[in-house]
Amino acid sequence: MNDATENRFAAGAAYQRGKYVPIAEATVSVLDWGFTRSDVTYDVVHVRHGGFFRLEDHLDRFTTSMAKRRLAPAEDRAAMEEALHRCVALTGLQDAYVAMLCLRGRPRVGGSRKLSDCDNHFIAYALPWIDVLTPDVQERGGHLLIAKVPRVPDASFDPTVKNYMWGDLTTSLMEAQDAGFDTAVLCDAQGFVTEGPGFNIFIVKDGRVLTPDRGSLGGITKKSVLDLCAMEGIDGAVTAITRAELEDADEVFLATTAGGVMPISRVDKRILGNDRPGPISAKIKDIYWRKHKEGWHATPVRYELATA
Amino acid sequence: MNDATENRFAAGAAYQRGKYVPIAEATVSVLDWGFTRSDVTYDVVHVRHGGFFRLEDHLDRFTTSMAKRRLAPAEDRAAMEEALHRCVALTGLQDAYVAMLCLRGRPRVGGSRKLSDCDNHFIAYALPWIDVLTPDVQERGGHLLIAKVPRVPDASFDPTVKNYMWGDLTTSLMEAQDAGFDTAVLCDAQGFVTEGPGFNIFIVKDGRVLTPDRGSLGGITKKSVLDLCAMEGIDGAVTAITRAELEDADEVFLATTAGGVMPISRVDKRILGNDRPGPISAKIKDIYWRKHKEGWHATPVRYELATA
Repeated sequence: MNDATENRFAAGAAYQRGKYVPIAEATVSVLDWGFTRSDVTYDVVHVRHGGFFRLEDHLDRFTTSMAKRRLAPAEDRAAMEEALHRCVALTGLQDAYVAMLCLRGRPRVGGSRKLSDCDNHFIAYALPWIDVLTPDVQERGGHLLIAKVPRVPDASFDPTVKNYMWGDLTTSLMEAQDAGFDTAVLCDAQGFVTEGPGFNIFIVKDGRVLTPDRGSLGGITKKSVLDLCAMEGIDGAVTAITRAELEDADEVFLATTAGGVMPISRVDKRILGNDRPGPISAKIKDIYWRKHKEGWHATPVRYELATA
Repeated sequence: MNDATENRFAAGAAYQRGKYVPIAEATVSVLDWGFTRSDVTYDVVHVRHGGFFRLEDHLDRFTTSMAKRRLAPAEDRAAMEEALHRCVALTGLQDAYVAMLCLRGRPRVGGSRKLSDCDNHFIAYALPWIDVLTPDVQERGGHLLIAKVPRVPDASFDPTVKNYMWGDLTTSLMEAQDAGFDTAVLCDAQGFVTEGPGFNIFIVKDGRVLTPDRGSLGGITKKSVLDLCAMEGIDGAVTAITRAELEDADEVFLATTAGGVMPISRVDKRILGNDRPGPISAKIKDIYWRKHKEGWHATPVRYELATA
């Protein structure tokens, strides 16, 4: 690989249509149903200290999401995995945000409107690390608005299929940013807490760590948090959480690949604890990153692929 | 302009980033929030016999949609309108499908997650005519499934903002295509009829022509149908329509820019009339296209822009 200073992949590397290109050249046709119908599923895995975190879990979830949407790219799992490794290797990054997508494509047959006439296609890319909440905000604790807009119901679209249909989530961000908050969480029409734009949510109440059972992604960071709770002897559970229970929580934190465990210090007008990350949230965040250093669930990036 | 045989815009022409390109070169970055968050609105106007149909109405709706999503491109209305004309002119098409889009873009500021830090951008393109239902299907009457998947509620995303978040609509097409139907219509969670993938729906009952008042786009073809009803002395109305009323209709037809007025001959297992387009549906379809020939609401395409 070239020096970082001359590496044309330094800003990111992408795989598409069998080729590796700098991220600026990674594009989708304006006619692809992956764009014009948001008929696409994706997943994001992170690389930390030169290793993918829970890569097999992300590939499993991505495979399940594709099957649920009947998306089948030309690449098999081994080829997709190699593309992810090679994208990271080309950037040379030790910490990275790595995405995999499968888009519907367009019908092969002129005039067809049939989903089965489309050639689905796979894209992968690696970027420098991204945080859903910036590091300074994570330090002081995020300010979280409970949005007015209700989450799209599970019956209309399965939220365990990771998707780009962010209309309600974008509206929640408008509400949050207008009111000076960092981000927002959405309730469903029945008043149960679901998720926010790009993350799962946890509350801590009387020493228990709880996360919603509906309206949300089967998060892999969420799973990791529950694993860490079990390892640390903290009682963790997936359960129904009402808006009132969120408002009355002792602590709140968010969980996502792009940022990890992110404590919240304010929920709506309420200030939690001392306006800083709560003790259990901070502890889980610390363990989460310490375990990364120890190689927990790590798959070393095959950096040698950069020159292959 | 060159001969059609050598015209590189024959398959379609697009305007993006201030330039005109063949449609195959019209792309969106895989990192644009217009793609990764489906944070984009659009509109489609058709050209028939060399004239745009209700161009001002489409530009009005597009402007309203952009305002509702706080999208503001660099181009003003006159510039957008010129781009639409020039895209069609470059293709040389007399009948065309013409799209206008505004995408969120990406934050100018590294690390920002703020919507207001994004430069929104406008894309336009013209393609050869597209029918949501193929001409042979329109001739015999479409076969319409009433989908099981409920339409996304208006409270979660305003359906009058034309959008690409087709998850529920794509699911309805899977249901329809699995069962051998041409397309599908969705009800909301309360059992009221809404719309289908790319069209509004009408029912005819006891000589009255009715279309849903919820869960659907403020369609311009829908508006045209109601205008034609008024001109022909047919009683037309926008009202709540239950699933049972749809199942019990005398006639059913669809309305959309990409296909116009499209009669339905079967709804689920029920065969309407003589398994062919009903008389009022067929009459409205005929008038709709006859009025096009007469120049109704037509804005002549400025074909001279192709050589400007």
